[in-house]
Amino acid sequence: MSKQKGRLTVPTDIDMIGETVRIIDYWGGDAIRDCDGTVMPDELKSLDVKKYATYYTTRKDNDWARKNPDEIQQVYIMSQFESASSDELRISIMKYIYKDLLQPNTNDDMSKWWEVIDRTTGEIVAFEDWSYDEATQEVVIRNAIPFHAYTVSFLAYIIWDPVHMYNAITNDWKDEEHQMTYDVRQPKTQAYVIDKFKRYLKENPEIDVIRFTTFFHQFTLIFDEQARESFVEWFGYNASVSPYILEKFEAWAGYPFRPEFIINKGTYNSQFVIPTKEFKDFMEFQQIEVSKLMKVFVDATHEAGKEAMMFLGDHWIGTEPYGKYFKEVGLDAVVGSVGNGSTLRIISDIPGVKYTEGRLLPYFFPDTFHEGGDPLHEAKVNWVTARRAILRKPVDRIGYGGYLKLALEFPEFIDYVKEVADEFRELYDKVNQVQPYCVPFKVYVLNSYGKLRSWGAHMVHHAIPYEDNYGYEGYLEALSGLPVDIEFISFDELLERQDVLDTPGVILNVGDAYTSFSGGEYWKNEAIVTKIRQYIYQGNGFIGIGDPSAYQKEGHYFQLYDVLGVDKEVGFTLSHDKYNWDEHEHFITKGLPETLNFGNKVQFAYADRDTTVIKTTGKSVNLAVHNYGKGRAVYMSGLPFNFENTRLLYRSLFYAAGKEDQIEEWYADNYNVEVNMYPSTSSYCVVNNTYEKQEATVFTTNGQTHKVELEPTEIKWFTV
Amino acid sequence: MSKQKGRLTVPTDIDMIGETVRIIDYWGGDAIRDCDGTVMPDELKSLDVKKYATYYTTRKDNDWARKNPDEIQQVYIMSQFESASSDELRISIMKYIYKDLLQPNTNDDMSKWWEVIDRTTGEIVAFEDWSYDEATQEVVIRNAIPFHAYTVSFLAYIIWDPVHMYNAITNDWKDEEHQMTYDVRQPKTQAYVIDKFKRYLKENPEIDVIRFTTFFHQFTLIFDEQARESFVEWFGYNASVSPYILEKFEAWAGYPFRPEFIINKGTYNSQFVIPTKEFKDFMEFQQIEVSKLMKVFVDATHEAGKEAMMFLGDHWIGTEPYGKYFKEVGLDAVVGSVGNGSTLRIISDIPGVKYTEGRLLPYFFPDTFHEGGDPLHEAKVNWVTARRAILRKPVDRIGYGGYLKLALEFPEFIDYVKEVADEFRELYDKVNQVQPYCVPFKVYVLNSYGKLRSWGAHMVHHAIPYEDNYGYEGYLEALSGLPVDIEFISFDELLERQDVLDTPGVILNVGDAYTSFSGGEYWKNEAIVTKIRQYIYQGNGFIGIGDPSAYQKEGHYFQLYDVLGVDKEVGFTLSHDKYNWDEHEHFITKGLPETLNFGNKVQFAYADRDTTVIKTTGKSVNLAVHNYGKGRAVYMSGLPFNFENTRLLYRSLFYAAGKEDQIEEWYADNYNVEVNMYPSTSSYCVVNNTYEKQEATVFTTNGQTHKVELEPTEIKWFTV
Ligand SMILES: [Mg+2]
Ligand SMILES: [Mg+2]
Ligand SMILES: [Mg+2]
Repeated sequence: MSKQKGRLTVPTDIDMIGETVRIIDYWGGDAIRDCDGTVMPDELKSLDVKKYATYYTTRKDNDWARKNPDEIQQVYIMSQFESASSDELRISIMKYIYKDLLQPNTNDDMSKWWEVIDRTTGEIVAFEDWSYDEATQEVVIRNAIPFHAYTVSFLAYIIWDPVHMYNAITNDWKDEEHQMTYDVRQPKTQAYVIDKFKRYLKENPEIDVIRFTTFFHQFTLIFDEQARESFVEWFGYNASVSPYILEKFEAWAGYPFRPEFIINKGTYNSQFVIPTKEFKDFMEFQQIEVSKLMKVFVDATHEAGKEAMMFLGDHWIGTEPYGKYFKEVGLDAVVGSVGNGSTLRIISDIPGVKYTEGRLLPYFFPDTFHEGGDPLHEAKVNWVTARRAILRKPVDRIGYGGYLKLALEFPEFIDYVKEVADEFRELYDKVNQVQPYCVPFKVYVLNSYGKLRSWGAHMVHHAIPYEDNYGYEGYLEALSGLPVDIEFISFDELLERQDVLDTPGVILNVGDAYTSFSGGEYWKNEAIVTKIRQYIYQGNGFIGIGDPSAYQKEGHYFQLYDVLGVDKEVGFTLSHDKYNWDEHEHFITKGLPETLNFGNKVQFAYADRDTTVIKTTGKSVNLAVHNYGKGRAVYMSGLPFNFENTRLLYRSLFYAAGKEDQIEEWYADNYNVEVNMYPSTSSYCVVNNTYEKQEATVFTTNGQTHKVELEPTEIKWFTV
Repeated sequence: MSKQKGRLTVPTDIDMIGETVRIIDYWGGDAIRDCDGTVMPDELKSLDVKKYATYYTTRKDNDWARKNPDEIQQVYIMSQFESASSDELRISIMKYIYKDLLQPNTNDDMSKWWEVIDRTTGEIVAFEDWSYDEATQEVVIRNAIPFHAYTVSFLAYIIWDPVHMYNAITNDWKDEEHQMTYDVRQPKTQAYVIDKFKRYLKENPEIDVIRFTTFFHQFTLIFDEQARESFVEWFGYNASVSPYILEKFEAWAGYPFRPEFIINKGTYNSQFVIPTKEFKDFMEFQQIEVSKLMKVFVDATHEAGKEAMMFLGDHWIGTEPYGKYFKEVGLDAVVGSVGNGSTLRIISDIPGVKYTEGRLLPYFFPDTFHEGGDPLHEAKVNWVTARRAILRKPVDRIGYGGYLKLALEFPEFIDYVKEVADEFRELYDKVNQVQPYCVPFKVYVLNSYGKLRSWGAHMVHHAIPYEDNYGYEGYLEALSGLPVDIEFISFDELLERQDVLDTPGVILNVGDAYTSFSGGEYWKNEAIVTKIRQYIYQGNGFIGIGDPSAYQKEGHYFQLYDVLGVDKEVGFTLSHDKYNWDEHEHFITKGLPETLNFGNKVQFAYADRDTTVIKTTGKSVNLAVHNYGKGRAVYMSGLPFNFENTRLLYRSLFYAAGKEDQIEEWYADNYNVEVNMYPSTSSYCVVNNTYEKQEATVFTTNGQTHKVELEPTEIKWFTV
């Protein structure tokens, strides 16, 4: 039996009754849950643990879906780009799309809801000049201009729920009926689903927690004709549409809808794209409507004496936990998948819920739990990175999901989860509701989304790094476990709010040029440039990673070239000689290895004369610092996540804030070791983030130090 | 004594009389010359060789310059960018400029010829709001907007000729009076210089060739306060200005002049910047005026019974040998510095002169000819690369420059030059005036400059590669020695000429995004996109290197994504899955090493489904091919010059042209070995481009082959 009990949810299944009981006891679980593909056995409903029921508002009722085909969920999709070679062009709109996933919506007025665009000019092709051939699923464009490229934006019914499809394929479910999704926003379905939900509540008195999976609209997830993922945007709104909803949007917004608001040149408003006014409006409208309808379900849950928990994923679009309307819903809890520290913070930082739960990885699915698989390794990496974030802002519970049966085949994994559960409970007791020590300045993360994408910025897919992006994700992962007070701010806020930079601090701006995260066209706005220059000049800090403030204008690429003391050679100033290439020792790299990993982008950044260059690769600056008035800037060409870089960022923050004399408080000289201090309990812990033994000198306060030796992944607690 | 004599110019000096005679005999020289810093001794003026006199139209008469300070040459310069922190900003305009090089022109109306720009908005600051403090050399801006950045564009007198300064510093000339440059375009100076020149012609009957160094306007060359080069643009027009000239330009162009036409955001219209309409107008105007005045000098030279030779460099701006007006000047010859194959072709391809001469490297200056220096190595690299180009289109003569005395300290170098001279004469006899075999299709090099920058495209500095650009120069260097018929074409020609793509062929488009060479905003023009798509579609080829057709628009970065079958991930489509990463064997890499050098730019290029990927680095395509209609495209992420890449380009050209079955004609299976065939003399040569022995199977014609063994750098000649 576990030394403690509680704060842990265990997945169960119909044929796992005894095993569930044993695991609850061994791990110290206090809740059980069913999952997609599993069923909670009646025998366990009397067990003295909380029972979560996964509740699908939008699927698992194909009968209803079949009878109401007009209220099946829809998604906006764009065809491939096709170039004309004569004046007739036929575009096969379902090319490269999995046929069992989507079905073009030809029921509604195509002249309004579909859009054919000449992508060589950007002009809309008049409806008179095209038609849809249902037999071949082709749009036929007449009067095409030879060698112009065209696309078709169209609505399609989601005839197989993408998550159900993903689960079915991953688990090789045979003969599984494809679950269709219906649109709870539409009147017939809404009435039906609410009624059905109320009946469910009555009929399932033994259930304690309704685990909504989820509220109404799936994030954008498309599969190609080979059933491979072809597009994924975890924050994507494409599948939250229907003519019914869009007409309401038009009425609310006061201007006509265009499919291009959602399609946006085929980018589908990926979060890397600077959101347009119309897309921001649409997100706002959806949040208002979704939260209103969520409240109906949550209120019913409460009336039935149960708790309402939302799964942060799947059909979660429009719920926006960091948006303006989420708090009003009255949810009790949010549960989400924890891939690392930043995905833990996405969950644990959510305001306005009573508790949060992190579903740790790996999920008990055969993609990991198969012969030769190494779930133990995955669990260890997951736990050590998540733990850094827990020590800053814990989730209130942890849990697992999937097939318990599969996990039981890996006894070492089962033992490790017991260790994790015990350690989590111990940490939680110590850090819950306790305000940890933070560095004596604020950290602002500046991008186009601000709060709305708190901790989720740069995330292409849930905690999965992409080769062309991994150098931009590291700073957030590093921050998720650092003792810093973070505020995510948007460029719009910089323009609209007077008080936005009212605290001494350091601004971070990170990402590829012209993307939403670095900011692109926002940097041509003089109000933004001057506001930030002034803030730094007066004695604050700026850290730019990648293409900070990039926007080619008036002879510079980085519009904060004067703050950064660095600009990027993009080809226009090759004839200007650059001499500042010598590397220097510096405060920010003290104690770090000679070679650091700045990612795989060669930025061809070069430094001004009065900039201190710290690291270069050939004729490209990787790391440099520069003074600006009383303030300071740090430039990094990239910052993949590792513990050296985490330390580099931490030291850079102090340097940029002009507070480097204060870094040696609750600090260890070994970058693999971190210190978290909790003033109200006069305690601190020293954490080994690695799988090797570590030694460190720990700096507590007022210059006092002591040595610590730590076993692999060990945490040692001390009292002041 | 040399086995042949002629076609070789030897530098001499006042104290080198006997040595010059000996070297002329040893190398087989037929001409002697003086250089900057050397003097032709009277004793040699009776020697039976051609005498070249270097003639400076714009300097070496400080007396005149001092007496006519208003007609000293001028240059447009921009100050550093300075950001205001209050409403007064003082900009030190000469900051980081070598004080003895330039002197601000305060004689002319500053309100017209100077310009203060708010670079945060791009707006001109009214003259009322600034003034110049001559004592401190500062522009004082009143009513500055805090945290806006400002620049000052101003005219400065060139009080030390930049080439003279470079030579003085490189040679450590002590107590050398700084030579000032005067503006031969201005009336007083013009009359004086022409008169003086005519007197010179009369007084120097023994001189055969006037070697003009050069005509009037220095390319842009600025040194910083430490006397280091700070800006160099070998094609730059900044130093071709004066109020006198600019007022004439205004009258000619019909619109008012602005300093920004020349300054262009501080880029100084580097050739990497897409030329503006105003800058194109200015270049045109200067060519008209410069060529008119050149003709005066050339006519006088001819009247005196001498030849007129122009040095391609130094004060050569506005002469534009590939422009519309050059031929009318009537020059006899052009001589230029040969750094490699493409710089040889810049000279040898010049139309409208009787002969050309290549001044081989190294120049006999102490930067190379010093203890521990290796001039022999430099000479070998120079000769082998130049030789490739000579076999395609030879210069008519070669020569050397600098201090003969220095070269004589290196006997091995002296011996090697003899070998070079002999080999050059042998090659020249065989290839002069003989049309070599060319591949059966045309090669179009498409950029913003077309013919005007024939062979000089991408050249930051004369034959000196830059780290951030070397992957884009290789294709031209490769082409300089390949059996191809090249036409340099501009985007403007594509728009204006109906016949521009009238021949079957392959278009090359190469360079960084948004630069003049890849084309930037030209690619948003549907006329360009459709014209090229159509040309390829009908059965022609396209080779893109780096960022071909790059311009972010309507969802694509490469506007010819459909032709290339490749686009670049710049951050907006990270959420789109990409699966085409497997490398394939292919015709274009046959016979090449497994690992090729694509330069140091990670382009994050990705391939369409129907594209054949050939080489990748991680998730970035380096090399791929794609069909488009009956045509084909090849994408390369970069192509530094080496013999593998030269072969890769050659094979790619045949593949793109759809003529891969014809490549094995006058071809060797070893990429270090090239074959040049001369149909009219029924001869061909097999060339070893390396310093090692090589073996190759040579494909002649009709499938016939034979084996060849070659000593290091050997050329073997055969008759068909
Ligand atoms: Mg500075
Ligand atoms: Mg280095
Ligand atoms: Mg294709």
